[in-house]
Amino acid sequence: MAFDISSYLLEKRTMIESFLTTYFDKSSDKPSIIFESMRYSLFAGGKRVRPILALASYEACQKDSMDIIPQAASVELIHTYSLIHDDLPSMDDDELRRGKPTNHKVFGEAIAILAGDALLTEAFRIMTEFRKNVIKPTSLLNAIQELAKAAGAHGMVGGQVQDILSESANPSLDMVNFIHSRKTAAMITACLRIGGILADASEDALQSLTEYGERIGFAFQIVDDILDIEGTTKELGKTSGSDQDKHKMTYPFIVGVGKAKEKAGELVQEAISSLDLFTQEADPLREIAQYLIRRRN
Amino acid sequence: MAFDISSYLLEKRTMIESFLTTYFDKSSDKPSIIFESMRYSLFAGGKRVRPILALASYEACQKDSMDIIPQAASVELIHTYSLIHDDLPSMDDDELRRGKPTNHKVFGEAIAILAGDALLTEAFRIMTEFRKNVIKPTSLLNAIQELAKAAGAHGMVGGQVQDILSESANPSLDMVNFIHSRKTAAMITACLRIGGILADASEDALQSLTEYGERIGFAFQIVDDILDIEGTTKELGKTSGSDQDKHKMTYPFIVGVGKAKEKAGELVQEAISSLDLFTQEADPLREIAQYLIRRRN
Repeated sequence: MAFDISSYLLEKRTMIESFLTTYFDKSSDKPSIIFESMRYSLFAGGKRVRPILALASYEACQKDSMDIIPQAASVELIHTYSLIHDDLPSMDDDELRRGKPTNHKVFGEAIAILAGDALLTEAFRIMTEFRKNVIKPTSLLNAIQELAKAAGAHGMVGGQVQDILSESANPSLDMVNFIHSRKTAAMITACLRIGGILADASEDALQSLTEYGERIGFAFQIVDDILDIEGTTKELGKTSGSDQDKHKMTYPFIVGVGKAKEKAGELVQEAISSLDLFTQEADPLREIAQYLIRRRN
Repeated sequence: MAFDISSYLLEKRTMIESFLTTYFDKSSDKPSIIFESMRYSLFAGGKRVRPILALASYEACQKDSMDIIPQAASVELIHTYSLIHDDLPSMDDDELRRGKPTNHKVFGEAIAILAGDALLTEAFRIMTEFRKNVIKPTSLLNAIQELAKAAGAHGMVGGQVQDILSESANPSLDMVNFIHSRKTAAMITACLRIGGILADASEDALQSLTEYGERIGFAFQIVDDILDIEGTTKELGKTSGSDQDKHKMTYPFIVGVGKAKEKAGELVQEAISSLDLFTQEADPLREIAQYLIRRRN
């Protein structure tokens, strides 16, 4: 029987959402508005791609993904905080995200900034608060280090800074590559590496997972940018063509949509090749790579 | 010979600054503006009270504070991020901090938000990146958990949210206590606890350090609020009386300056009493408590 990627994604997504729902279901927490604001964006219909990649990476190393649900979920908190802050008036000034008003439109700018801060902080709390004996403490420290490095000024935040700066710069492929590698690929690669690190993967296996992550991270961003050009607002849940309106520097903007699609396809094939040393336990990763370029939102 | 608190504070401050200077001295880091923005606020003349408390707490447990310089310094990154975000136009809208224009006045709002995000993230990276064999991995994980809990929605961020909400609320002592305990005391208490946790302190010792932290944390905030009323703008490095202008709910605002000074004095005495089970190794903590209410900025 062929591996069913849709069931796999649904199953893992449900595991992540179940953890997050339980963790954030403390209705008596005060001041309530900050928790409402955090939950609003955290449960706005995200696909949970990043945590699922961490789980699939851990499974590729022949482990049970139940071991690391909290650590995988914490990546989603960091992703959510980055969306809230990116949407702020002083950044991309977006009004719609996943088909709903952006966080600051609902809660105001101050609370949106603080909800982002709180989600980022809470991610590191969750990393440390749920420890299983199967995970070595030093491996968990390494995973936290990986996460912080990928999310910070040398990773995601640095990419967002360059993204803002690039709106008033001349387009160049170098700059697009820099933004992509930092803003999206760094965190996606970190998800793969965190799965491998927590599983105590060999150097070779970790290197393969890293290459897979870099390649699908790049492909994922290219597909996002193509969807922004080709998709409808309804499909995307955000205003289509908004990157172009803001003169965002994207890969399809520079090389054209046709060549961008070609590039994404190549990257996915290369990503799959990176996994050659893994057995069938890495099939979910192989299928996710294919899925990422087929998606419509 | 009497213990010289000024030399002690200078020595520890120098140790912390030396670490931070080396860590952030990568002039080739790109995009450079985010690192400039981070450094601008990190080296704006902070007293480094929080890291020094972590070091003094570790020393009170008969350990060498050189072991935990990076972990103590990371608390300063979190403190600095919180000041940058608190000063933003959508929050307290402050123009002056430590005698210099606030971060967003110099770098713009987007970069200021991102510099705060990056400092917060980098704090967790530093916690994990510098490990000494004398620190147990599980103790380091516990310290990270402590830091994230104190800085997040149940701690400092929650306090800032309540602080913003309180500007339009009726003053009450309950609300002031809530804001104080979350916004300032939680992080100060965490510094003491992190020192104790990294030193593998006994339950009793950790409890004593916690009580000391809660008491000086509260006293520290009361003194800050009194200085805001009584101090000159020159002494403070920020506009004096600005809390009153913004209808900030403070302890002296509610009970009066005289009673507030009395309360701060009592808290310092209680903090010192909390340390009864410690020997002379806790003298720095005892002296710091006294120093905190004598200060003029």
